[in-house]
Amino acid sequence: MNHPTTDLDLLSINQATTKIQWTLKEAINGYQAQGIHGISVWRDKLAEYGVEQASHHLINANMTVTGLCRGGMFTASTPKLRQVSIDETLTAVDEAAAINAQCLVIVAGGLADGSKNIVQAREQITEALLKVLPYARSANIPIAIEPLHPMYAADRSCINTMEQANDLCDLLGRGVGIAVDVYHVWWDPKLEEQIKRAGKERILGFHICDWRVPTRELLLDRAMMGDGVIDIAGIHKMVRDAGYTGYSEVEIFSNEWWNKPAFDVVSTCKERYLEMMRKA
Amino acid sequence: MNHPTTDLDLLSINQATTKIQWTLKEAINGYQAQGIHGISVWRDKLAEYGVEQASHHLINANMTVTGLCRGGMFTASTPKLRQVSIDETLTAVDEAAAINAQCLVIVAGGLADGSKNIVQAREQITEALLKVLPYARSANIPIAIEPLHPMYAADRSCINTMEQANDLCDLLGRGVGIAVDVYHVWWDPKLEEQIKRAGKERILGFHICDWRVPTRELLLDRAMMGDGVIDIAGIHKMVRDAGYTGYSEVEIFSNEWWNKPAFDVVSTCKERYLEMMRKA
Repeated sequence: MNHPTTDLDLLSINQATTKIQWTLKEAINGYQAQGIHGISVWRDKLAEYGVEQASHHLINANMTVTGLCRGGMFTASTPKLRQVSIDETLTAVDEAAAINAQCLVIVAGGLADGSKNIVQAREQITEALLKVLPYARSANIPIAIEPLHPMYAADRSCINTMEQANDLCDLLGRGVGIAVDVYHVWWDPKLEEQIKRAGKERILGFHICDWRVPTRELLLDRAMMGDGVIDIAGIHKMVRDAGYTGYSEVEIFSNEWWNKPAFDVVSTCKERYLEMMRKA
Repeated sequence: MNHPTTDLDLLSINQATTKIQWTLKEAINGYQAQGIHGISVWRDKLAEYGVEQASHHLINANMTVTGLCRGGMFTASTPKLRQVSIDETLTAVDEAAAINAQCLVIVAGGLADGSKNIVQAREQITEALLKVLPYARSANIPIAIEPLHPMYAADRSCINTMEQANDLCDLLGRGVGIAVDVYHVWWDPKLEEQIKRAGKERILGFHICDWRVPTRELLLDRAMMGDGVIDIAGIHKMVRDAGYTGYSEVEIFSNEWWNKPAFDVVSTCKERYLEMMRKA
């Protein structure tokens, strides 16, 4: 949808943003009620609703599914455990296809249990992606590697910069790209250069939220756009300039926002998104 | 001291590790009592003791001062405020010279108050360093840029990778190098390559502690070596292979360790350091 007909046409909300308040069914209805037509879906919520029912509902609500979260977590201490994560990711590919998701988001995995070997963890990630990719290609589901902030290197993902993700994409070839989340990459000295390098073909998603100062804890203190220090409009311009024409997806993991009524959260997402667009 | 005569000859303790428990005087005595001959000094503690008194004590205790912490915090919204940080850093150069410190550690500064412009912040850092360097050179005090973990980009330093620090050193020329702190750089995909690039001339310090999983908060939850997931011995090998022959300096900001008796903290630093060295 390259030519938005309303201001909200390219706004998506990742349902993690209202994950405590709303089921998937409620989120679809709740977002739709406020004129939003993009959603990113989480697998646990999808399972709870049922893939088939969810798929019908998403179609009927005219929702574009900007991503399914998530596959990955490929690092583990034994080949058997690593195979479990690969199999899970293949199932996730099926689910992404069933709900017509634009991509399957990959959180690659941190250090394996008991390991301090980050080079090995990265090799395990590459190996796993090589095993997942043929299936994802045949299902026509793009694999979106999401580089995570380095503060998650130990326990969530050893893919931590755009440059690293680009290198990985070069190595993996067709069918794989990058989800650019401002929270994870805003600090990167090579951000603009590496977004340009990724380009239109490779940028599969653009996620927004903000970096709170001070950040009170590592995982659940993301801020609403405008309440932090990230130049979101500036990074949005970078991905647009690189050729990205897709949605901006709000993804906020926050105890603070999870404690507010979901309707208000969604209203605020809309307001702040529109503010960002006015700065463009 | 390239050829250690005892196992502890290349161990230094940054006094921040016992900052709640001990004054500078107590730290010098306390470290010395346990056979440690390296210390990194903080300016507030130095001011409290008095530069001249501290200098005499350090000499009498046969302490090598592996660094003075710190100069920098160069980013600010007005030229006048930026000049204040430059002047402060020049004073820190004098103090470093007075206590015969091996380097002045620089924490460069995060985003200026109210700013979201990280490119501009980095320009301000470069400009400030260009103003500080002639004086530091004439005082024969090496300036050690310490790249900080990206989770501190907003409020402490926009210099966040070894590559960026190396680029900055290339630009600044003589008299400037890098303090490599495993806590800040262990996750970096280009770590080994950029340590090699820095080499013997440029690596001015090697700081150790560990990354706790989970990390409960961003600033004061560093772990004792061995209690986290960083391959400290591996990174130590990288800096040695690059030609670094200096001290390993323990720097632990931790509410947990600040709540223990300083003597026990220092004993544990020694034990864990020796464990790291045995893995070499």
